Amino acid sequence: MKKPLVGILMGSDSDLPVMRKAAEVLKEMGVACEMDICSAHRLPDKTAEYARSARERGIEVLIAGAGMAAHLAGVIASHTTLPVIGVPLASGAIGGVDALYSTVQMPPGIPVATVAVDGSKNAAYLACSILSIKHPEIAQRLEDFRQKTRKSLLAKSESLQKQLKKEQ
Amino acid sequence: MKKPLVGILMGSDSDLPVMRKAAEVLKEMGVACEMDICSAHRLPDKTAEYARSARERGIEVLIAGAGMAAHLAGVIASHTTLPVIGVPLASGAIGGVDALYSTVQMPPGIPVATVAVDGSKNAAYLACSILSIKHPEIAQRLEDFRQKTRKSLLAKSESLQKQLKKEQ
Amino acid sequence: MKKPLVGILMGSDSDLPVMRKAAEVLKEMGVACEMDICSAHRLPDKTAEYARSARERGIEVLIAGAGMAAHLAGVIASHTTLPVIGVPLASGAIGGVDALYSTVQMPPGIPVATVAVDGSKNAAYLACSILSIKHPEIAQRLEDFRQKTRKSLLAKSESLQKQLKKEQ
Amino acid sequence: MKKPLVGILMGSDSDLPVMRKAAEVLKEMGVACEMDICSAHRLPDKTAEYARSARERGIEVLIAGAGMAAHLAGVIASHTTLPVIGVPLASGAIGGVDALYSTVQMPPGIPVATVAVDGSKNAAYLACSILSIKHPEIAQRLEDFRQKTRKSLLAKSESLQKQLKKEQ
Amino acid sequence: MKKPLVGILMGSDSDLPVMRKAAEVLKEMGVACEMDICSAHRLPDKTAEYARSARERGIEVLIAGAGMAAHLAGVIASHTTLPVIGVPLASGAIGGVDALYSTVQMPPGIPVATVAVDGSKNAAYLACSILSIKHPEIAQRLEDFRQKTRKSLLAKSESLQKQLKKEQ
Amino acid sequence: MKKPLVGILMGSDSDLPVMRKAAEVLKEMGVACEMDICSAHRLPDKTAEYARSARERGIEVLIAGAGMAAHLAGVIASHTTLPVIGVPLASGAIGGVDALYSTVQMPPGIPVATVAVDGSKNAAYLACSILSIKHPEIAQRLEDFRQKTRKSLLAKSESLQKQLKKEQ
Amino acid sequence: MKKPLVGILMGSDSDLPVMRKAAEVLKEMGVACEMDICSAHRLPDKTAEYARSARERGIEVLIAGAGMAAHLAGVIASHTTLPVIGVPLASGAIGGVDALYSTVQMPPGIPVATVAVDGSKNAAYLACSILSIKHPEIAQRLEDFRQKTRKSLLAKSESLQKQLKKEQ
Amino acid sequence: MKKPLVGILMGSDSDLPVMRKAAEVLKEMGVACEMDICSAHRLPDKTAEYARSARERGIEVLIAGAGMAAHLAGVIASHTTLPVIGVPLASGAIGGVDALYSTVQMPPGIPVATVAVDGSKNAAYLACSILSIKHPEIAQRLEDFRQKTRKSLLAKSESLQKQLKKEQ
Repeated sequence: MKKPLVGILMGSDSDLPVMRKAAEVLKEMGVACEMDICSAHRLPDKTAEYARSARERGIEVLIAGAGMAAHLAGVIASHTTLPVIGVPLASGAIGGVDALYSTVQMPPGIPVATVAVDGSKNAAYLACSILSIKHPEIAQRLEDFRQKTRKSLLAKSESLQKQLKKEQ
Repeated sequence: MKKPLVGILMGSDSDLPVMRKAAEVLKEMGVACEMDICSAHRLPDKTAEYARSARERGIEVLIAGAGMAAHLAGVIASHTTLPVIGVPLASGAIGGVDALYSTVQMPPGIPVATVAVDGSKNAAYLACSILSIKHPEIAQRLEDFRQKTRKSLLAKSESLQKQLKKEQ
Repeated sequence: MKKPLVGILMGSDSDLPVMRKAAEVLKEMGVACEMDICSAHRLPDKTAEYARSARERGIEVLIAGAGMAAHLAGVIASHTTLPVIGVPLASGAIGGVDALYSTVQMPPGIPVATVAVDGSKNAAYLACSILSIKHPEIAQRLEDFRQKTRKSLLAKSESLQKQLKKEQ
Repeated sequence: MKKPLVGILMGSDSDLPVMRKAAEVLKEMGVACEMDICSAHRLPDKTAEYARSARERGIEVLIAGAGMAAHLAGVIASHTTLPVIGVPLASGAIGGVDALYSTVQMPPGIPVATVAVDGSKNAAYLACSILSIKHPEIAQRLEDFRQKTRKSLLAKSESLQKQLKKEQ
Repeated sequence: MKKPLVGILMGSDSDLPVMRKAAEVLKEMGVACEMDICSAHRLPDKTAEYARSARERGIEVLIAGAGMAAHLAGVIASHTTLPVIGVPLASGAIGGVDALYSTVQMPPGIPVATVAVDGSKNAAYLACSILSIKHPEIAQRLEDFRQKTRKSLLAKSESLQKQLKKEQ
Repeated sequence: MKKPLVGILMGSDSDLPVMRKAAEVLKEMGVACEMDICSAHRLPDKTAEYARSARERGIEVLIAGAGMAAHLAGVIASHTTLPVIGVPLASGAIGGVDALYSTVQMPPGIPVATVAVDGSKNAAYLACSILSIKHPEIAQRLEDFRQKTRKSLLAKSESLQKQLKKEQ
Repeated sequence: MKKPLVGILMGSDSDLPVMRKAAEVLKEMGVACEMDICSAHRLPDKTAEYARSARERGIEVLIAGAGMAAHLAGVIASHTTLPVIGVPLASGAIGGVDALYSTVQMPPGIPVATVAVDGSKNAAYLACSILSIKHPEIAQRLEDFRQKTRKSLLAKSESLQKQLKKEQ
Repeated sequence: MKKPLVGILMGSDSDLPVMRKAAEVLKEMGVACEMDICSAHRLPDKTAEYARSARERGIEVLIAGAGMAAHLAGVIASHTTLPVIGVPLASGAIGGVDALYSTVQMPPGIPVATVAVDGSKNAAYLACSILSIKHPEIAQRLEDFRQKTRKSLLAKSESLQKQLKKEQ
C-alpha cells in the first residue's frame, strides 16, 4: 500500500458525502490519500498538530472542506507551509458565499488555494496538478484524463448531432 | 491601576485606528482593558495561548477585530469559553461583507457575538452590557450613558428646530 | 423551580421550531429560561415593557430571533442595557441576509450580539458564555460541553478511519 | 403659515444633508412639512410618541430616513396607521443595501413605502402623490412638475443635438 | 357595488397567486379594487393607457407586481401622478433581488412605493394607509386590524406559555 | 453625410460622458450614429415614439444606457423589434448591480443585449458585430480592429520584457 | 433544408434541456440553427475552430450557454467578430450570479450580448432581432410574434375579468 | 541567471502595479519568474501557446491575474496541466466579486487555485508552497519567512504595549 501524498480534512462528518468525491478522484488518478475530521473550532489542537506534522509524514498537499465561517483551510495553512487547498461548502442559509469569502480572502503570507463552492472534485484535480511538478507519472495521468474528457465530450457532441438529425 | 476586564485583540497594527475606539469607549465607561496584536494565521500559538489563559488572568470579555477572511474572533472562541465579541473590519476589495460572514457564521458550540462592520465602539458597549450582569456599577454607567445620549440627541433636535425656524 | 436567567423572544409563533433549539441548549446547560412572542412591529408596547423590566425581574441575557427586516433584537436593545443576542432568521425570498443586516448593523451605543443566520443554538451557547463570567458553574458546564464535543468528534474521526480501512 | 402635512424624521443630525432635500422638494410643491431627529434606538419613547400623535396633529404622511440597520421607518410604522415612507441611507461599510433590506422587508400588516437608497427627493414626490388623492391642488402641482421635467429634458435633448452638430 | 379605489396590476397571469393576496386583504378592509394583467413590455400601450386614465376613473392607489427586471410599477408611475406601490416578485434564478432593485431604485421625480419581495399583502395594507388620509372609515378599519393583530399575537403568546408549562 | 445606422440613447445628460464613448468607437469604426436623451420615466411618449419609428428611419441597432432601476433599454425594446443593446450605468449607492439586473433580467420575448456595467465602448463594438452580418465592410473593420488590438498588446508585451530586463 | 443562420453552443450536455428552448423558439420563427457541445475549458481547440469558421460557413449569430465561471461565450467571442449572445446558466451553489458576471463583464473590444440567467428563449428572440436587420421576413415574423403575444395576454386579461366577476 | 519556475501573466498592462507584487515576493523568496501580458480574449492564440509550452520550458507554476469577467486563469488552465493560480483583480463598477466568481467557479477537471481579490502577494506565496514539495530550499525559505513574520508581529505587539503604557 502506497504512502498517502494528500490529506483530506473536513470540519464535520456531515461533509463526508461532498469531500469523499475528492478521494474518489485521487483514487482514479492513482494518488494515495488519507481522510480525517479536523475542526478548526472544535478540535483546534488536533488540527494544528495534524498540519504541523503533515510534511514530515510525507504529505505533500492538504485539502480542507468547510462550510459557513469556513476557517478550517486557513487555520491549517497557518500551521504548515505545504500547499493547502480550500473547498468552500454550501451549507446553512447563506448558501456557500459565506464559506467562499471565509476561505479565499486570506491575508498576505498565509494563502489558501480556493476552488469552487462544493468543488471537492476540482480540489483533487488541483492536488494532482501540484503533485505533477514533482511526480511525472501524475503529470502523465492528468494528460490522459484530459484526453479522455475531450473524447467523452466529443462523443457526446456526436450523439447529440445524431439525436438532432432524428428529431428533424 | 485596575486589572483589565476586557482584552481587545486585532490581527494587524493597521487595524489599530478602528480598534482603538473600543478602548476609548471602555475608558469612558470606567472599564480597564488591555490591547494586543494577535493574528489567527500569523501568530496562531500566541493567539491560542492568549485565549486559553484569559479567564484565569481575570479577563471577562474578549473583543477581536479582523478583516477579509476574518478568523481571529472564531479562533479565539475555539480556545476559551469566555464571551468573544467579533468586529468585522472593512478592508480589501470586498469591503467588509467578507469579514462579516467570516465572523458571524460560526458553527454550533463556538459562538462569536458579532457587531456591525467596523463597529468597534459597539463592541465596547456590548462588552459593558455583558459585564453589567456581574458589575452593578457598569450597569449604572450604561444607564447614565443612555441618558446622556438621549439628552444630547434631544438637544440636537431642539437646535435643528431653531435653525429651521430661522430659515423660514 | 429555578428563576429564569435568559429570556428568549421571537417575532412570530412560526419562529418557534428554530428558536426552541435555544431553549433546549439552555436546558442541557442547566440554565433556566423563559420564552415568549414579542413583535417589534405588532406588539411594540409589550416588547418595550418586557425589555425594560427584564433586569429587575432577574433576567441576565436576552435572545431575540426575527426574520426579514429583523428589528426585534434592536428594539429590545433600545429598551434595556442587558446584553441582547440577535438571531437573524432565514425566511422570505431574500433568505436571511436581510435579517442578518437588520440585526447586526446597529448604530453606536445600542449593540446587538449577532450570531449566524438561524443560529439559535449558538445564541444559547453565547448566553452561557456571558453568564459564565458571573456563574462559575456555567463556566464549568461549558468546559464540560467542549470536552464532550471534542470526544464526540474524535470518536467520529476514529469511526471514519475504520470505515475507510474496510473500503480499501 | 400653513400647518404641516408631512413629518420628516431622521435618526441622526448627520443625515440632515440628505433628508433636507425632501423638505426642499416639498417646499417647491407648496406642501408644508416639519422635520425632526427621532432615533428608533436612542429615542424610542419620543419616536413612539411622535408617531402615535401624528395623525391627530394633522400630519398625513411620514418620511423616515435611516442608515445601516435602519429600523426608524419600521418602528414609526408600528405606532401609526398613517402612510410611512422609508428612505434607506447609504452609510457605513455595506453602503446602503443593509439599510434597504432593513427598511423594505417589513412583515405583513406594518408596511413601509420604501424608495431608493438615498432617495430623499423621491420620498417627497411620493408624499405628494399620496397627498394628491385628497388635495387636488397637489395633484395639479405634480402634473405641472412632470410637464416642467419633460420640457427641461426636451430642452437638454435639443441642446445636445446642437452640440453634436457643432462637433461634426 | 362600490367603485374600485385600488387597481392591482400584474405582468403575467402566473403572478396571480401572489397578487391575489392583495385583493383579499383589500376585501377584508372593505376597499373595492380591480385587478388586471398589464405588462410593461408586452402590453406597453394598454399599460400606459391604464395608468393615464386611472385617476379620472376614480382609482386612488395603484399596486403593480412584477418579477425579474420588474419595470411594471416604474412604467405605470411614469404615466400617472397617483401613488404607485411596487411589489417585487421572486421568480427566476436571482430570486427577487433583481425585482427589488428594478422596482425601488427609481430616479428622482417618478417614485415607486416599494414593499418587500412577494409582499403583496403589505402592498394592500399600504394602500389602506394611503387611502386612510382621505377616508376616515379606512383609518378606523386599520386601527381595528392592528388591535385584532395584537390580540391574536397575545393569544398566541398565552397559548405558548401554557404549552411550555405542560412540557416542563 | 451618411445616414445613422445606430441610435444611442441615455436617460439623462449626466450619462453623456460615459455614453459618448460609444459614439467615439462607432466613429472610429466608420459607423454613423445619432445620440439623444430619452427617459423611460420622464419622457415615456418620446421614448416610445423614438423606438417605434427607428426601423423605418433606417436605424438598425439601438443602444440605451441608464442607471439605478435602468428601464430605458427594456422600454425601448418593448416598442421595436430591432436589436437593443443595454448599458447598465454605475450611479447611486448600489453602484451598478441594480442597473445590471434591471437591464439584463428581461422576460421572454423582449430581450435586451446587455453589456458590462459602464460598458458603453463594448455596446458600440457589439453594434458593429450585429451590423457586420449585413455590411461586409464593417466585418472587415472589426477584423482590422482586432488585429490592431493584438499588435498593440504584443507591443506592450515586448516593451514590458525590455523594462523587466533593465530592472534586473 | 435551409442552411443554419444561428449556432447554439453549450458547455455540457446537462445544459441541453435549457438551451434546447432556444432552438425551439428559432424553429417557431422559421430560422434554421445548428446545436453543439463546445466547452471553453474541456474542448478549447474545437471551440476556437468552431468560432473561427462560423462566419464563412454562413452562421450569422452565435448563442452560447454556460454555468458557474461561464467563459464559453467570451472565449467564442474572442475567436469571431460575429455577434455572440451569452446565456448565463443557473447551476451550482451560487445559483447563476457567478455565470452572469462571468458572461456580461467582458473587457472592451470583445463584447458578449448577455441575456437573463437561464434566458435561452430570449437569446433566440435576440438572435431574430439581430437577423431582422438583414432578413426582412424575420422582422415580419417578430412583429407577428409580438402581435400574437399581445393578443394572448389580452385574452388572459379578459378571462381574468370574467373569473373575478364570477367570484364576486 | 536562474531559469524561471513561475510564469506571471496579466490581461493588460494596467494590471502591472498589482501583479508586480507577486514578482517581488518571488524575488524575495529566491524564485526566478517571468512576467508577460497574455489576454484570454485579445490574444487567445498567444495565451494558448504560452500555456501549452510552459511545462516543457521548465515552468512549474503559473499565476494569472485578471479583472471583471476574468477568464485568463481558466483559459490558461484549459491548455496546461500545471498548477494555475488565479488572482481576481478589482476593477470596474462591480469591484472584484465579478472577477472572483469568474476565476474560482471552474468546472470539474480544470481547476484554478484562486486567492483573494487583488491577492497577488499570496499568489506568490502559494506558488512557493507548491514549489516547496519539490524544492526543499524553498520549503526552508517559507519557514524562515513565517518566522520573520512572527517576529515582526511580536515586535509590533511589544511596541504597541510600550505606546499604550505611555498613553496612560
